[in-house]
Parts: sequence; C-alpha cells; structure tokens
Amino acid sequence: MTGVRLRMDLAYDGAPFHGFARQPDVPTVQGTLERVLGRLLGQAIRVVGAGRTDAGVHADGQVVHLDVDTSVARADRAVRELTALRRRLDRMVGHPITIWHLRRVPEDFHARFSATERGYRYRLADSDALHPLLRFDTWHVGVELKTRPMQQAADHLLGEHDFASFCRRSEGGHTVRQLEAVGVERVRPGRIDVAFRAPAFCHQQVRSVVGCLLEVGRGRREPGWLGEVLAARSRAAASRVAPAHGLTLESVKYGRRFPASPPPVA
Amino acid sequence: MTGVRLRMDLAYDGAPFHGFARQPDVPTVQGTLERVLGRLLGQAIRVVGAGRTDAGVHADGQVVHLDVDTSVARADRAVRELTALRRRLDRMVGHPITIWHLRRVPEDFHARFSATERGYRYRLADSDALHPLLRFDTWHVGVELKTRPMQQAADHLLGEHDFASFCRRSEGGHTVRQLEAVGVERVRPGRIDVAFRAPAFCHQQVRSVVGCLLEVGRGRREPGWLGEVLAARSRAAASRVAPAHGLTLESVKYGRRFPASPPPVA
Repeated sequence: MTGVRLRMDLAYDGAPFHGFARQPDVPTVQGTLERVLGRLLGQAIRVVGAGRTDAGVHADGQVVHLDVDTSVARADRAVRELTALRRRLDRMVGHPITIWHLRRVPEDFHARFSATERGYRYRLADSDALHPLLRFDTWHVGVELKTRPMQQAADHLLGEHDFASFCRRSEGGHTVRQLEAVGVERVRPGRIDVAFRAPAFCHQQVRSVVGCLLEVGRGRREPGWLGEVLAARSRAAASRVAPAHGLTLESVKYGRRFPASPPPVA
Repeated sequence: MTGVRLRMDLAYDGAPFHGFARQPDVPTVQGTLERVLGRLLGQAIRVVGAGRTDAGVHADGQVVHLDVDTSVARADRAVRELTALRRRLDRMVGHPITIWHLRRVPEDFHARFSATERGYRYRLADSDALHPLLRFDTWHVGVELKTRPMQQAADHLLGEHDFASFCRRSEGGHTVRQLEAVGVERVRPGRIDVAFRAPAFCHQQVRSVVGCLLEVGRGRREPGWLGEVLAARSRAAASRVAPAHGLTLESVKYGRRFPASPPPVA
C-alpha cells in the first residue's frame, strides 16, 4: 500500500461518549473519529489512541495515529492539505471533540507504543457550593480536605511498584508501573487538583488513587495508609474509585524523536 | 403578615433554562426556585430577580429576594437555620443552579430596584479550534479579532446615551442608560473577554454591542462606527446580536446600605 501515517492531537468532553474505545451501537471517541475520517478520506480508517480513556473521562491532549492509503485519489489530495483537512474534521466531529493538530509522522511512530509519558489531572472541589459550569469536569466532594496529608500520602506511591491494589484488572497479569510524579495542589479556595505523571498507567489507577487520597484528605486515614494499600497488592485494600468526570488525560509525550505539538490556544 | 425578607445570591448555567422569568410548562430559573422554595417552606413563594436574563444566558452573581410568611411554623423553623436551608435548597435545585448565599435583609431591600450596578461579561474565542468545555459559555467566532480597535469602539458608548440602537424593545419608551465601563481584554491566546458595568441595561444591550464590536474586531468596520450606530437610535443601524451562551451576569451591587456578599469559593 502507498500510504502515509498521520498523528492527530485532540481534546474531548467525555460526557457524551461511552469511552474512547470503539463499541457497537454507542457513541465513542474512536468510533466518531473513524466514521468521520472514513467519509472524508473515502476509505475505511482505523485510529490507534495513546490512552483508552473510560466512559466520562475527558482529554485535553489525547494523541492518535492513523494510516491513509494515498492510492485513493481523494485521500491523496486530502493529505496534501492537512490544515484544511483538520478544519473539516474539527467541524464534522462536532463540539464535544476538538482537533488541535493533524500532521504527518514517520511510519514507526505509534500513538500508544512510542509514548514515553502520560499526564493526568484529577479535579476536586471541597467547597460547600460548586459553580454550575464546574460540574462537567470537577468532582464535588463537599467536605473540606487537607492537601498536606494528601501530598504526603501520594508520595508513598512514587517510583516503581506493583500497583495491583489500584488496578481494575490485571492486563495480562502485569500491574507494575513507574509513577514519576504526583502533585496535590489547592489551585484556589475550594478547588484542588491532583496531577499525575508516569510512562504508563494501569486501568483506573488514577481514579483509584484519588479515591484513597480523599480518605486521607478528610481525616479518616493517616498518610501512611497509602503505603499499606500499595503493599497489600489487592483491590480490596483500596477505597472506592473516584468518579470518571473529574479526570482528564492532559498530555502524552514521545521523547526527542517525535517532538511535542505546539500547545493549543483556547 | 408576620414575615421576613430573604436575599439569595446564586449562579446558574443558562443552557437548560428558557431564561430567568417564570413561564408556563418550560424550565426557568425563577420557576425552579419558586417550586423548590415553596416545597421547603410550605407556602407559595414568589422571587424577584435583579436581572431577567434571557434564555441561554448564565449568571455567576444573580440576586433575588423573597418574602417568607413566618406564621407558618415550618417556615419559621426554616428561616432560623438559613445555612441548613441554603444547603437543602442547593441540593434540591440540582446542578445547573448553585445557591451561594441566603440571608435575611431589611424589608426595604429590593433585588431589582435597590440595585445600583450590574456587571456582565461576554466571552469570545477567536482561535481556530475551541476547547470542548469552553463551548458552554464562550462564543467561538473562529476569525482573528483585534482588541485595540474593539476597545476604541467601545469607548464611544461610555456615559449617558439613548441606547435605542442596541435595545431589543423600548421598555415604556425609555432606552436612556448610563454605561460606566467597557473593557475588552485578551485574557489568553485565543480568548477575549468584554466586561460591562452600568447601573442598568436595556434588553439585549450587551449582546447587541458585542455583535457590533465583532465587526470592528475583524476589520469590517472602523472604531468610529460604534458612535454612528449609537447616534442612529435605530435597531436597523446595529449588527446582529451575539449569541446568548457567551453572556454571563457576573455581579449585582447595592451600595453601602446593603453590603456585598463574600465572594463564592468554587
């Protein structure tokens, strides 16, 4: 096949989608992209995403790749004008998805396997009342949280560990992950962000950790408890996972060979 | 009647409502508040708002007042515990409305007629692509705007004028208003806010002015054109009104006798 590989950087509101991964008969991010790209390029298109976000989880900087068969004349024309293609695509996918960038990449670029780092952000509100427009991406816990013990607790998870206690299912039994950074920050009165950075995460790891950090923040557990949960290597040791709508996949990085896209502007 | 007057400060997402003002058979902010308050206080409640926002327009700092007949035992108990009443009300009105404050005020406080200043903010995006969560409160114009000529144009409207060109209908023929401040600010790349301050506005005044400022920002008109539109005293002279979802009623002030509520926290 004569073809080109394209990389697409995108954002989405997770609310209207049953997650990233294609499923029959329900709206998904992957399904929507493949349908619209297929129509624009006149061929069946499969996209591969850096992270398969769950139902309700948002993305600011998701990355996908796709291969386009340029022996199809229409596709050949389209990939010569990627700015125009990006604009048409952005309009056609509708408001809950935004296409920041679309560009050609080397054929060995792989959105999932070439990724060297993922960044997630979980938004919490511990205020009494929550601004109505924050309900879309912020978990309103409604009880006051102390960020210092939350940070101390999170620090127990740094480095390489078996995160089985925080993983929904063992993906082929492998639940060892390298957690590079966790930052708990009161971004303004009533609002707390928890930012995570790692080469890779297991399924529901971030939401499960946030669920446990909440127990510490509200004073029900000591910071050291997170170390105990980790050591237990059992889901039963952890608290309930935090809801999906507070979580955003912020960024995916690919190292020096595949430079980052310029930041989105609005 | 033995009673007390209460003041309520609230925010709402305008999207699910057919505006502030009560109407039969459709969801409105006033209708929702009156229904829930009526149930909580065991009596028919009428609320009076500082500003009757149109369908789709949001509020961060709307103010209403209401009178409660405290000869009803249940109401008498409720108004003695205003913090608890505010919380129950906030839960019962649901996510699109947030009750920031509920407190007792002197009986001559009137949400509409005692107000000395209203502040509105209109959010614009002139970026190529718009973050999905900004679609709720930001008008994506999608063409690049120059803020300097927009500010110069807006300055033509400062002071007391007949704003008939920018008013949807003459409310009893009276379209003279005192515009105290208009600020056009690029708050970050791709995002522009236009903030307005005045004792009172006529119907659709802000959205109509923003529609005209857009013509200047995109270079179709000179800044002085706003002065011409103002002088024409005719709706026909103005450009189309900007859409409702970009507009937010930010604050209402009442002068020294009725001090402002503490700012909301999240």
